[in-house]
Amino acid sequence: MIERRTPIPVGEAVQRVMQYQLDGQTEYVPIQESYGRYLSEDLTATSDVPHFDRAPYDGFAVRTIDTKEASQTNIVEFEVVDHIGAGMVTTKKVGPFQAVRIMTGAQMPEECDAVVMLELAKAFEKDGKNYMSIKRSYKSGDNVSFRGEDAKEGDILIKKGIKINPGIQAMLATFGYANIPVAKKPIVGLYATGTELLDVHDALVPGKIRNSNSYMIAAQIERAGAEVQYFGQLPDEFETCYEAVKNALGQVDMLITTGGVSVGDFDYLPAIYEKMQAEVLFNKVAMRPGSVTTVAQFEGKLLFGLSGNPSACYVGFELFSRPIIRRMLFSEKPHLRKEKAILDVDFLKANPFTRFVRSALTVSDGQLVASPSGVDKSNIVMSLAGANSLMILPGGTRGFEAGSEVAVLMLEDFDGSEWPW
Amino acid sequence: MIERRTPIPVGEAVQRVMQYQLDGQTEYVPIQESYGRYLSEDLTATSDVPHFDRAPYDGFAVRTIDTKEASQTNIVEFEVVDHIGAGMVTTKKVGPFQAVRIMTGAQMPEECDAVVMLELAKAFEKDGKNYMSIKRSYKSGDNVSFRGEDAKEGDILIKKGIKINPGIQAMLATFGYANIPVAKKPIVGLYATGTELLDVHDALVPGKIRNSNSYMIAAQIERAGAEVQYFGQLPDEFETCYEAVKNALGQVDMLITTGGVSVGDFDYLPAIYEKMQAEVLFNKVAMRPGSVTTVAQFEGKLLFGLSGNPSACYVGFELFSRPIIRRMLFSEKPHLRKEKAILDVDFLKANPFTRFVRSALTVSDGQLVASPSGVDKSNIVMSLAGANSLMILPGGTRGFEAGSEVAVLMLEDFDGSEWPW
Repeated sequence: MIERRTPIPVGEAVQRVMQYQLDGQTEYVPIQESYGRYLSEDLTATSDVPHFDRAPYDGFAVRTIDTKEASQTNIVEFEVVDHIGAGMVTTKKVGPFQAVRIMTGAQMPEECDAVVMLELAKAFEKDGKNYMSIKRSYKSGDNVSFRGEDAKEGDILIKKGIKINPGIQAMLATFGYANIPVAKKPIVGLYATGTELLDVHDALVPGKIRNSNSYMIAAQIERAGAEVQYFGQLPDEFETCYEAVKNALGQVDMLITTGGVSVGDFDYLPAIYEKMQAEVLFNKVAMRPGSVTTVAQFEGKLLFGLSGNPSACYVGFELFSRPIIRRMLFSEKPHLRKEKAILDVDFLKANPFTRFVRSALTVSDGQLVASPSGVDKSNIVMSLAGANSLMILPGGTRGFEAGSEVAVLMLEDFDGSEWPW
Repeated sequence: MIERRTPIPVGEAVQRVMQYQLDGQTEYVPIQESYGRYLSEDLTATSDVPHFDRAPYDGFAVRTIDTKEASQTNIVEFEVVDHIGAGMVTTKKVGPFQAVRIMTGAQMPEECDAVVMLELAKAFEKDGKNYMSIKRSYKSGDNVSFRGEDAKEGDILIKKGIKINPGIQAMLATFGYANIPVAKKPIVGLYATGTELLDVHDALVPGKIRNSNSYMIAAQIERAGAEVQYFGQLPDEFETCYEAVKNALGQVDMLITTGGVSVGDFDYLPAIYEKMQAEVLFNKVAMRPGSVTTVAQFEGKLLFGLSGNPSACYVGFELFSRPIIRRMLFSEKPHLRKEKAILDVDFLKANPFTRFVRSALTVSDGQLVASPSGVDKSNIVMSLAGANSLMILPGGTRGFEAGSEVAVLMLEDFDGSEWPW
């Protein structure tokens, strides 16, 4: 018997899944471990930056009132009453025609309102005292970094959901965040099904292949920002699979299975969902590869039944599982980032369904250019290795010529897109 | 006294550093831990893929010789002698007008040379036996995935130096690589210098700032693919710094210091290099920010004296330290990836030196577009947080208008560029 399934459009499938997104949770990690994590709260300035008026150059701090008459023909001399580096504060009170030798980053003496750059002053000694002279006047504020000029206390500087990069690390340290509120990594359970699957350690035997999907999906889960809980491989046996899936779901935030989801004679996932009384959100999507992708929900938790076919599995994860993970990481743009690109080669295959073609996205003269990253057969692991994007070729078309504009989804990006694309 | 230094062009500085690159080393990690690491050997196919002729669809395996006469008007019947799923191998010998019901991924029976898709066959029972009938003929090879059609044993599939992504994980598993040869992460030592530096845990006090460079550089080191060994903060005291730097160098592959490298009165790194008898490769580069970046080598190991100024420190690391790290990760393209982009806004500052402007690189209608990510003051930590690229504005220019083409260096990319840019 051939089961008849009704395919739904990709967009509708994504929306059905997103209804069951779970809330993200916060955990605190030491700043040294926060690189690459996602902020779970907005980052607020805890002080002004700089938090004192400071010298941005090496030079002499002066009172500009004393520089008024200085010119090429009227050299004005200052007594240098102190000498401070970054981190030091002068204890001297700077009076008329006095100056402080000051290094980059040091706090301005209270009475001073400008810095004469070292190169523009002439330093000398007289009667055992230090002096310097200048030949021009200065305006109040010249060569001073003022308190709060970079950021004001209370400013929201970074929104939650952003991935922590080196620059954000610097900001966190600047504002004294020693422990950082980040999104707790969702736990994604993973089972591979299929009697044909050997372990990576096993020698090849006739008819069997090594399980590659589990390692691939585990890496995709990690790339998305979550943590994988790998439960192992299951044979194509109904009862074994049923018990395993049911027991696993309680231990994770969502569960991914690979294989067993099609309409083949040994595909038991549909029957398992039925016996569990899980609600099937869809079991067929109008797309290639991955048309048999099935998503169900049970007590508010999502079960992703991805195809056993590597490419279909890969695409199913990126379209349906990734945005759920990214939402739990507080992202406002949880979907794969979508951009336009120029197709680099002819792709003349007719397309009854929307096709997601594994592609290598490059830049040529500032223009994004996409090429299929391998022969587009859905069983070819090879083309996944070179893919940094998925080209979207809409259904109902007769193929695309080199030079056409196409939409691409970026796989290695962390910014994302909002829905709908 | 103002020390006079002779600035050298950026390209020459990079080349002087690259002379002292160290060789990468291999370590083996379990496949589960290899995502994101860099292959240290070419990845070779250890078998054909697929390693047996297989059915790419659910259907019936047949001998095409028996289908020759089938047509709309001449229905041909086959006895179905076996029923196999993926991972199973038939034990039956398939004779004339016999067929095997076969599921996707299963090994083809030896006598069969085509698969009739399930939808195109009519299955029925007769006298307690299973049959199917077809209405068209098949050519040898129809709907069969042949042994070796995706990859041949011995093929080099991925070159060393490539970062392991989810698709490469799948390939590694397919070929039975349970332990993966990856580049050992170089150990990069890190010292922050500066009397002005507070720890991230400390409350602010007048004249002092929290040490943000160490956390920033640590994240940059991690992003580049290396491991940081953080030694802590040093005050601006010559003897303390000298001993610390000298002792640290033996424990790491290279050493980064931040601060103390300029010509200020409390900048001791130049004197430390001199006392160590380290060879200074350069101490001034014709660029902004980061002109005082100093690189020295001592017994073949590099000492990167980066500026204490956050932006200069950031840029100095990316231009000079990153490629050394990437080389040790076996990269053929260790330098920041360079592309062209359109400048989104006016940038009318005159440029005596080549300027590296922290930028946000976006895509608009398939075209890379760059905007400065904040006010371009070299002391502004804020603009680093939003930077995913550095715009290169060549020296000797009077500024750039919106719409100009500019070169950009991509910070979050893993492909890289070769030198010279």
